[in-house]
Formats: sequence, C-alpha cells, structure tokens
Amino acid sequence: MKKLRVGVAGLGRLGRVHAANLAYRVPGAELTAACTVTGTGVDFAKNELGVRDVYTSYEDMLANADIDAVAIVTASADHCRQAELALDAGKHVFCEKPLGVDLDQCRRAEAAVERHPELTFMLGFMRRYDASYAYAKRKIDEGAIGVPYMVKATAMDPASAAADFIRYAQAGGSGGIFLDLGIHDMDLMRWYLGSEAVEVHAMGATFRHPEFRAAGDDETGAAMYRFANGAVGMMHIGRIGPHGYHVETEIVGTEGIIRISAVPEKNLAMLYDKNGACTECVQGFQERFADAYLAELEQFVTCVLEGRKPGVTVYDGTASTKMGFATVESWRTGKIVEIQ
Amino acid sequence: MKKLRVGVAGLGRLGRVHAANLAYRVPGAELTAACTVTGTGVDFAKNELGVRDVYTSYEDMLANADIDAVAIVTASADHCRQAELALDAGKHVFCEKPLGVDLDQCRRAEAAVERHPELTFMLGFMRRYDASYAYAKRKIDEGAIGVPYMVKATAMDPASAAADFIRYAQAGGSGGIFLDLGIHDMDLMRWYLGSEAVEVHAMGATFRHPEFRAAGDDETGAAMYRFANGAVGMMHIGRIGPHGYHVETEIVGTEGIIRISAVPEKNLAMLYDKNGACTECVQGFQERFADAYLAELEQFVTCVLEGRKPGVTVYDGTASTKMGFATVESWRTGKIVEIQ
Amino acid sequence: MKKLRVGVAGLGRLGRVHAANLAYRVPGAELTAACTVTGTGVDFAKNELGVRDVYTSYEDMLANADIDAVAIVTASADHCRQAELALDAGKHVFCEKPLGVDLDQCRRAEAAVERHPELTFMLGFMRRYDASYAYAKRKIDEGAIGVPYMVKATAMDPASAAADFIRYAQAGGSGGIFLDLGIHDMDLMRWYLGSEAVEVHAMGATFRHPEFRAAGDDETGAAMYRFANGAVGMMHIGRIGPHGYHVETEIVGTEGIIRISAVPEKNLAMLYDKNGACTECVQGFQERFADAYLAELEQFVTCVLEGRKPGVTVYDGTASTKMGFATVESWRTGKIVEIQ
Amino acid sequence: MKKLRVGVAGLGRLGRVHAANLAYRVPGAELTAACTVTGTGVDFAKNELGVRDVYTSYEDMLANADIDAVAIVTASADHCRQAELALDAGKHVFCEKPLGVDLDQCRRAEAAVERHPELTFMLGFMRRYDASYAYAKRKIDEGAIGVPYMVKATAMDPASAAADFIRYAQAGGSGGIFLDLGIHDMDLMRWYLGSEAVEVHAMGATFRHPEFRAAGDDETGAAMYRFANGAVGMMHIGRIGPHGYHVETEIVGTEGIIRISAVPEKNLAMLYDKNGACTECVQGFQERFADAYLAELEQFVTCVLEGRKPGVTVYDGTASTKMGFATVESWRTGKIVEIQ
Repeated sequence: MKKLRVGVAGLGRLGRVHAANLAYRVPGAELTAACTVTGTGVDFAKNELGVRDVYTSYEDMLANADIDAVAIVTASADHCRQAELALDAGKHVFCEKPLGVDLDQCRRAEAAVERHPELTFMLGFMRRYDASYAYAKRKIDEGAIGVPYMVKATAMDPASAAADFIRYAQAGGSGGIFLDLGIHDMDLMRWYLGSEAVEVHAMGATFRHPEFRAAGDDETGAAMYRFANGAVGMMHIGRIGPHGYHVETEIVGTEGIIRISAVPEKNLAMLYDKNGACTECVQGFQERFADAYLAELEQFVTCVLEGRKPGVTVYDGTASTKMGFATVESWRTGKIVEIQ
Repeated sequence: MKKLRVGVAGLGRLGRVHAANLAYRVPGAELTAACTVTGTGVDFAKNELGVRDVYTSYEDMLANADIDAVAIVTASADHCRQAELALDAGKHVFCEKPLGVDLDQCRRAEAAVERHPELTFMLGFMRRYDASYAYAKRKIDEGAIGVPYMVKATAMDPASAAADFIRYAQAGGSGGIFLDLGIHDMDLMRWYLGSEAVEVHAMGATFRHPEFRAAGDDETGAAMYRFANGAVGMMHIGRIGPHGYHVETEIVGTEGIIRISAVPEKNLAMLYDKNGACTECVQGFQERFADAYLAELEQFVTCVLEGRKPGVTVYDGTASTKMGFATVESWRTGKIVEIQ
Repeated sequence: MKKLRVGVAGLGRLGRVHAANLAYRVPGAELTAACTVTGTGVDFAKNELGVRDVYTSYEDMLANADIDAVAIVTASADHCRQAELALDAGKHVFCEKPLGVDLDQCRRAEAAVERHPELTFMLGFMRRYDASYAYAKRKIDEGAIGVPYMVKATAMDPASAAADFIRYAQAGGSGGIFLDLGIHDMDLMRWYLGSEAVEVHAMGATFRHPEFRAAGDDETGAAMYRFANGAVGMMHIGRIGPHGYHVETEIVGTEGIIRISAVPEKNLAMLYDKNGACTECVQGFQERFADAYLAELEQFVTCVLEGRKPGVTVYDGTASTKMGFATVESWRTGKIVEIQ
Repeated sequence: MKKLRVGVAGLGRLGRVHAANLAYRVPGAELTAACTVTGTGVDFAKNELGVRDVYTSYEDMLANADIDAVAIVTASADHCRQAELALDAGKHVFCEKPLGVDLDQCRRAEAAVERHPELTFMLGFMRRYDASYAYAKRKIDEGAIGVPYMVKATAMDPASAAADFIRYAQAGGSGGIFLDLGIHDMDLMRWYLGSEAVEVHAMGATFRHPEFRAAGDDETGAAMYRFANGAVGMMHIGRIGPHGYHVETEIVGTEGIIRISAVPEKNLAMLYDKNGACTECVQGFQERFADAYLAELEQFVTCVLEGRKPGVTVYDGTASTKMGFATVESWRTGKIVEIQ
C-alpha cells in the first residue's frame, strides 16, 4: 500500500486541521512536508505533527520536498498562483476555497489544470463531503424530492466570533461576507439545482456592530438568485448567530423538501430545565464540519491513488467565484446584476 | 336543535373549566344549573357564566334544577355516590376521574349504570380525547405499528406547582401520586394494549421535597406492569418537572412506535439564543389538555343527543382503580402484587 | 351580560368557520343573521347554526337584521364597499383580509373608518392571533431577541390542494399568489419589524403545474424586501407543499432568533417506522389556524364590548395591500420596485 | 513521539472497527500485530490494514509480537482469561465489554489488574466516550440537573438485524439480551447516578419472533432497579426497533433532565414529503457509535502514554456484570432479586 506523500501549504486555523488529518487520519496519505511563514506554524508542524521537512517558502517546498501532492490552505489571493506552480511541478493539488479572488486568476488556474490532465486537482468545498449534505445529494439524485427548484441557504457565524470577523473585515482581503462566507452556499445551490445562476439581487444590513459597515463590509447579507433553468436561490448570511454557528440549507423540490440542520445541534443531548427544552449548538465551522474536512481529504487521496476525478472541479471554483462577484456588485450598487 | 341542559357539580379548578366549556363552547349543551359549596363558586357561576340556578347542595340541584344531565367534578370520594343519585334521578352523567376511591364504590356505580341502560354514563379520562392521543389510537387501530406490546408513560407535574401538591398530599384524600396522577397512564395502557394488567411492581423516590414522604406520599413514582396478553407497561410519574408539565406516552409495536409529546411544547415557536435552541414548555394540565377537556364534553353531549355509547365506560373506571390500588400496595410493601 | 349580535356576510369555506365560531364558541357573541348567495349557504345557516334570519342580499341584512356588527367574509373585491356600508349603517365591522383589491378601495375604507370613530373596525389577519405568532410578538416586545432585523417567511399550500388553486387562479380575482397567500407574510414582516417596506424584488417559478403560468399566475413566488429601518424581508410562497400546509416564519434579531413552525405538525405524535422518525403535517389553513380564527373573533367581540381598539387596523390593510401590489409589479416586470 | 504498539485479538465485526482505528486513526498508536482464527481475518489484517505480524493463537501473539498493549475483542467468555495473560506478560490491556461471563472470572481479572498497578487496564464501555453521553456527564457534574435520581434507558437493535440476533441467541454464549445489550445501560445507570443497584425486577416479552423464546432468550426486556441512594432505574431493551438502532437515555434530576437521542438520526437532514417530516435513523451500533469506538481507543492510548488511569475500571466491569446476572435471575424467576 503506497501512501500519497503530501505537503501542506499554510498552517493557519484551517491549515492545521488539514495537516493533522493528513498526518493521522487519512489512511492513504502521509504528511511529509509543510510550508508556513510563522514560527508557531513551524513548531506545530514539527512538534505536534512530527513533520521534519518544514519550509518557509512555498517554492522551496515545491522544489525540494519529497511530495506527490500539495494541500493549499494559504491566503485566498495565493490559491491560483500556487496551484499553477504545483501542477507545473507535477504535483497533485488540493486547494481550499475560494479558487481565486478574481476571474483572471480562476481562468489561469483552469488553464493549468487543463495542461495537466494526468494530475488530480480538487477544490475544497467541504460541505459537499459532510454526511448530511452528501446524503441530501444522494436522495435528490434518487428522485426523493422530484425536481429541485429552489434552494434556501442560511449561514451565520457565531456572535461570539464577531470580533474576529470585524478584524478580518478591517484587514481586507477576505473579499467581504458574500465571497468569504456566501461562496459555500453559492456552490451548494449550483450543485443541488444542477444549473447556473443568471441573475442576482443582494442587499446587506448591519444592526449590531457598525464596525462591519465602517470596514466596507456588512454584518448580514441577503441575496436572491434566478437560475438558468428557472430555479430560485435565496441566501441569508451573517456574522452574529446568537446561538452559535448556524449553517442550514433547504432544497425544495416538486415532490419533497430536504432541510439540513434546522437546529445546529452540538450533539444529541437535550436539556429540559427552566429555559424549556434546549439543545446546545455548535460554535464554529471547525466543530460543525470536522468530519467533512476529513472526508474531503480522504476523497482527494483516494482519487489520486485510484486515478479518479474528484467531484469538485476547477470549473466549480470559477463558477462560484463569478457568482460571488456578481453578488458583491449587486450589494454595492443596489441593482439586479446579470451573471454571464 | 334541542340542547342538553346540564348542571355542573363542583366549581373548583377543573370544575370551572368544564362549566365554562358547557356554558360557551359545546354547541349541543346549555349550562342551566350549578352546585358548589363555596361563595366564590357561586359568584363565578352567576357572574362569569350567567347561571341563575345555583345550589349549595347536590341533592337540591338534582331534585329541583331544570337539567337533563350532570357533570360531576367534585371530590373523588363523592363521585360514585353522586353518579348513582343522578342516574336514579334519571339524569345522564359525566363523571370526572377517578371513578371512585375504593372498589366497593366502583361496583355500586357499575350497578347503577346497569340499572339505567337508557341513560348515558361517561367517565372523564380526557387524555383519550386529546388530538394526539386519539390520533395514536386511530393509527394503531389501522395497524400502523403492528401489535402494540409495550407502553412507556411519563407524567410530571411542574416543579413550580410542587407546593400545591405538597399541601394536597398533606390534606390526604388524593389517594397519593399513583392514584391521582398515575391513573391516567393506567387507563391509557389498558386502552392502547387492549389487555388488563395482571401484575405490578412499584417504587417511589423523594429527592427534593421531603414533605412528600412526611405526608405518606412520594415525590416520584415508578411502576412496571405485566399484562394478560404478555405486554409490558412502564410508568414514571413525578411532581417536580423542571421544565413544566410533562406528559409523554410511547406505544411500542411490532412494526412501529408512536411517541406522544417528547417535548411538551407550549406552542410552535423555537427560540435560538445563548441557551441554544429552546422550546418553552406547558405549565399545567389545564394548558396541555384544554382542548381535550372540551372534546370530551362535546363527545358526552353528542352521545346523549344521538343515543350513542361513549368510549370510556364505568368498567374502565373500575379497572383503572383496581390497577391503581394494586400499584399503591406494591409501592407500600415493596412486593410484586397480582391484580385479579 | 349583553351579547354582541353579529351578522355574517359570506358562507364560503372560511365564512362557515367564522359563522360557527360566532354561533357556538365566542362567549360574548350571538350569531343572529347571515347573508349568502348560495342555497347550500342558506341551508347551512339554518340547519347547522340555527340562524333564522338569513338573507340573500347584503344590503337587506344591513337594513333589516337585528345586528350590532357584521363579519365580512365575502369576495375580496367586495370587502371595502361592504365595510363602508356597514360602518355608515352604524355597525361594527370585522373584515377578512385582504382589505381591498386596489389602493383606492383601501383609501375609501380608511375614510369610512375615520368617519366613525365610535365604531370598531378590525381586519382579519388571523396569524397575529395564533398562539405561536402572538407569543413571538410578546417575546420580541420583551426584548428576547434584541432588535429584529430580518424576517424570513415561508408559506406553502398543500400539493393535495393544487387543483383547487389552479381553478382559483384560472377564475382570476384572487389577485395571484402574492396577494392571496403572500399578504399574510407581508403583514407579519411589518408587524414584527415595526417598519414599512420601501423596496421589493420578486420572482416566480412553475415547475410542476404549467396551468399556473398559463393562468397568468405562478406556482411559487419569492421576494426580497428592504425596510425603511434597514431591515430585510425574505419570502417564499408556493402551492405545492409536498407534506402539507407549511407556514413558517423566522424573526432574526441581534440577540436571538424566533422560528415558528419549522415542522407544521398535525399533533404531538411522532411515528417511528420504516420511514424513520416521522411527524404527520397539517393539511390546510383551516386545520393550522382553527384556534387563531376563533381568537381573532373573540378579540373583535371583546374590543367592541369593552370599547377598545383592536391590534389590526384599517391602515394595516392599506399598507400590506400596497406592499402586495409592489410585489406583483416586481414579479411582472422583473425589476426592483420602490414602495412609496 | 513514541507510538504505542498494539496487537488486536479478534477480528470479528467489532474487532475490525477497533483494528482499523488503531491502524489509521489513533495518532499515538501503531497496529503492529493481530490475532484471529479465521482466514478472512488474516486477509483483512494483511491486505486492508497492512499488518504483517498476524497470529492464529493469542498466546503466540503475546509471546512473540512486538507489542506494548493488546486490544481484546474476542468472545465474551475469553475476555478475563486473555486480559490476565496479557497483564502477566507485561502488556497494557484494552478489553471489550462485558468484562466476563461470570463473577469468578471478573474477580480473577480484578486480581490480575491489582497485581500490575504499573499497567493500564481499560474496559470498553464505548457509550461513555460518545460525544453526547460524555457531554451529559459533564453537564451533570457541573450541576446542570441538580441531583440525578432516575435513569430511563432504551436500547433497541434494528428489526432488520433480527435474524442475526436470533442466530446469536440460538448459538448461546451471548448471555441473552440482558447481558449482551442491557449491560451498557446498567453501566450508564451506575455512572450517572453515582450509586450501585441493590434490587432488580425484570420481565420479558416476545411478540414477533417466537424464535427468541424458543432459544431461551426474549425479544424484549424490561427492568426496574432500585439504587443504594434511593434512585430508580428503568430499562427497556429489544431486538426489533422498527426504524433502526435506537439507543436513548434520560437522566432525571431535581433541577433538570438530560435526554440523549430521542430521535436516533442518521444525520442532520429532514425529508418533508408525503409521509410528513421524517428523519432517517441509524441502523446499527457501528454507525451510531463509530466516533465513540475511536474516542475510547484514543483515551486508552493517551492514558498509557501519559500514565493516567482510564475512567472505566475493572471494577466497573464486575459491578455491571453482577447487576446483569441479577437481572437475568429476576427475568427467569419472575421475582424481585437483591443485588449484594
């Protein structure tokens, strides 16, 4: 059983999740190298993950590390460039979402992928690998809800993390709430509806932390999409989930509806006390999607080892990015924006 | 459309519920008389319900009021005697549970009912008329769960009412938690299983209010029943429901299970806040069973007017009382008790 | 205890609900007259409700019946005119939604109400009187969710009734799905957000019954609103609820969220069987809102008898109608529409 | 980072789960040996897990393999003997439940553990390591429900697996439904109540598959326990869960109640269709407790590496076994049985 040797690029919050999964939990993989620009990242890689081959330059790692593949978990603006470099260096690529921060980048990444049909490229839309989302897709493909004609999506980061997201907005670079948070919902809409969005109207609101507006972002976003096949998408995203991290998705079909996670339960316990019957909720994406982050990497590794194509392609990255930019434009201008 | 003229006996907490329903909400009935021993009862009947014919003696009302039927909502010890008097006076009888406080009483009531086949007698096990309980019965009769072989019953009065129930226990006369509260669950077990209990083992516990034990009662009761057809009953009753009034019943069958009210929700609203996702709960039997109290009286009136027999008979009263006494004996002695 | 004598106008499906409530279940009211243009309506009034004074002309009833008030449950186009006639005849008015089918009508109704400050006028937005919706309002007023800044509304008629709604659309006069069904959600958004909508963008979809489109209506509607205070409204309405009648509303606030009826449960029973753990759902507005229809009439009668003003005014009718027309215009043109 | 070298004994259904976890998912462990008596087990170990050192004799593995610890997942009757051998050979021991099949065995295992205080012994009550059960324990320890005074436990294997369990019963050796399935609930009662059972009354029922009775077992078991501190335990176990594998536990306290898994959901998706609002359920212990099986091994490995004592001791094994035997005796005799 040959193992896939992977080098991870980026050891921030999510990078560490991926790195630990590669090191300990993905049977077919070995974490043989890491690249990080922070001292704590280096320490983490060496002491927590036992990686001996740690770089501070991505290009260095690509040139020298004993790796078959890279997992790119760096800043969004670097994704496309690093993916291209890796592919041209003959490495398989797992790349975190979003694919890029502008469409030119995305197109260059597409070209790089097309130059290397012998290599596997997979984009990290982890929700597709979550047990509930994957189950919904399977049921829909089996016809359980007839023809899906509407997706209603909600994603709220927990109020407890609002300070982090304010700093994040102030630092710029995230692309704002629609690109950073909403991109997942856009991908899911496309996936479940099997169609592309052709029109969007978005608006925002800030009621608690004026800092979001001051930083040129918004605390809450709302958008309505029309899809090429006539289907409708509705999205509500926000930064101040009072009870925690709330990601809920509903796919409405002609014969049934599937709703995922109406209560973002922390576990299966319910407490009956003076507050009523209460379920404690998850507090962040790491908690909610821990298994999905693992499953997507297992999928990537399996695809490489078995020469199969992953479900999430580079074109999904471009399409969702395009949808994201149109959404931002609508939010900025207050007008309906067509998506070519 | 001739209306059934009803006189209510007893205007305590539950008596007022029945009286108001008869006065305002049961299309086929008219509340033409009332009998109560308290001044506030008299005022309530006259001012709130517009009853002009108010008595302080049950016998007086029976002899003089312009009534076709009586609704007996007096102390448990008086039920059988008053039912017998009413039947012998040619009145239809709606009688609150329990039928009686000993088996001799029950047998005399049975005899009175049998003496008057031309009259309608109905016992007030209101849960059978609750929409959810009636639905469960209908589904079971339709075969939705195959053969029912186990009933698991829970009934907890709200902690907020514990002081009332302590006084109630201290005053005696309620028969204790098993007869007062558990009798409903015993009736439901018999109803859903279609069999009679042949053996019981009961125990009790008091962990918060020692006053219950001091009064010769218990804060919590637990009992396990074996039924003639081999089915099993499990019961948990208590006085300190931390979240409110919790009545939950589960009927387990060979092909399905029906569970009623796992969350005793106050309404359909869920609040997501720092406590998680919470549902506020009902706080008492009046709130939980308001519709059932109305439905059972509508059923009684309809049965009288249409000459049909109600679902809950005098024999149901005797059987549940017998089961209740055996339960109390087991709780007192710590032994398994056979039920003849 | 003087009772309010009420005459009901219209004995269609909903008219009968109101009439029966007035006849049997509203303590302070007496149903003394009815007006209906159908023979079955006359029979129903006489035989089922015991009303002796039945008219086939509204004006006749107004002129001759022994009534203090009217309940108008006729075709939408007649509401304003009949309300005005009643007010000018010195009668209190309970009027079903919508107030009118154009803004001129609404303005005339407003003027009539203003001409008669001594009379009570109430509009029938029954959802406000549903236990769960009223509870949500109370909690919000108490500050349970901080500042409400978004309402997400869903309303789906049951797929089983689609044929009825197709006929209804074909007959015209309903005003289409947005005015007929969505008007309730518009009223609730205004009520919960405490602000008026200033902009709307709406779209529609028809995936199962092309008859809706053919009749100039749509099977599904979606709309997004911006409110004067910056709040956002999102609405999804439809005619083919696969599981039944699904009315769900969520009010999102800075400190909490209240969601009403995520599962439109028929009752409190859950069936565990080969399909999983299932809750049967309600099948229509009559079933879901039976208690609310009663509560709103009780409120109306109480307001008249006690000289209080009801919560739902004639201006609520105008405002929601205005919002409804703007929504229809956006749906027709595909453009964002401002609401003055 | 030194890894704990573990040899697994037994590669049946559950043995493979543990072996795969040790091989791939427990960071601190290495699966260096395996012992199995079946050819398919040998193939699985070599081909699926990459274990080169595979034995067909437990004693052989103990004598020759390069291991620090053993994971015993063999037949219940072998657990104590194999644990003793391993401890005397200087190996740490993870042992699946139940500890033994009679009390003498348990006592010998206790003695072996006491002979080797330098070694770690842990019993595999995996439910304690499930996220929801562990959360409940933590909340209880924090005082969230006051004093726990009752545990209500339900465990139903899925109807779809009944044929397997019939064969299992016919083969003997499982000890019957109370020892095989109920032992988990007995352990949990002791754990949550912090007290030992002093009395049990048990009964059984068979309504669907007479084969259970014919094999000297029962399809359904029910038991009621009295604990030393006055607390009460109620247990319902069965083999024909109509919707799947249903393990539900409720801990009732003076200030709150925690209920775990009232709906044994497969994932977070709900399907609304003609059956109502449905949640698909898990179909077996492997599915429900996959994470718990991993967490308990991680706990074992951490305890060994850090020299800490695991939460589940050999004495927990003896105590639950004692409780189990008394339960079986009560079920056989129909009498209340005291537990010394």
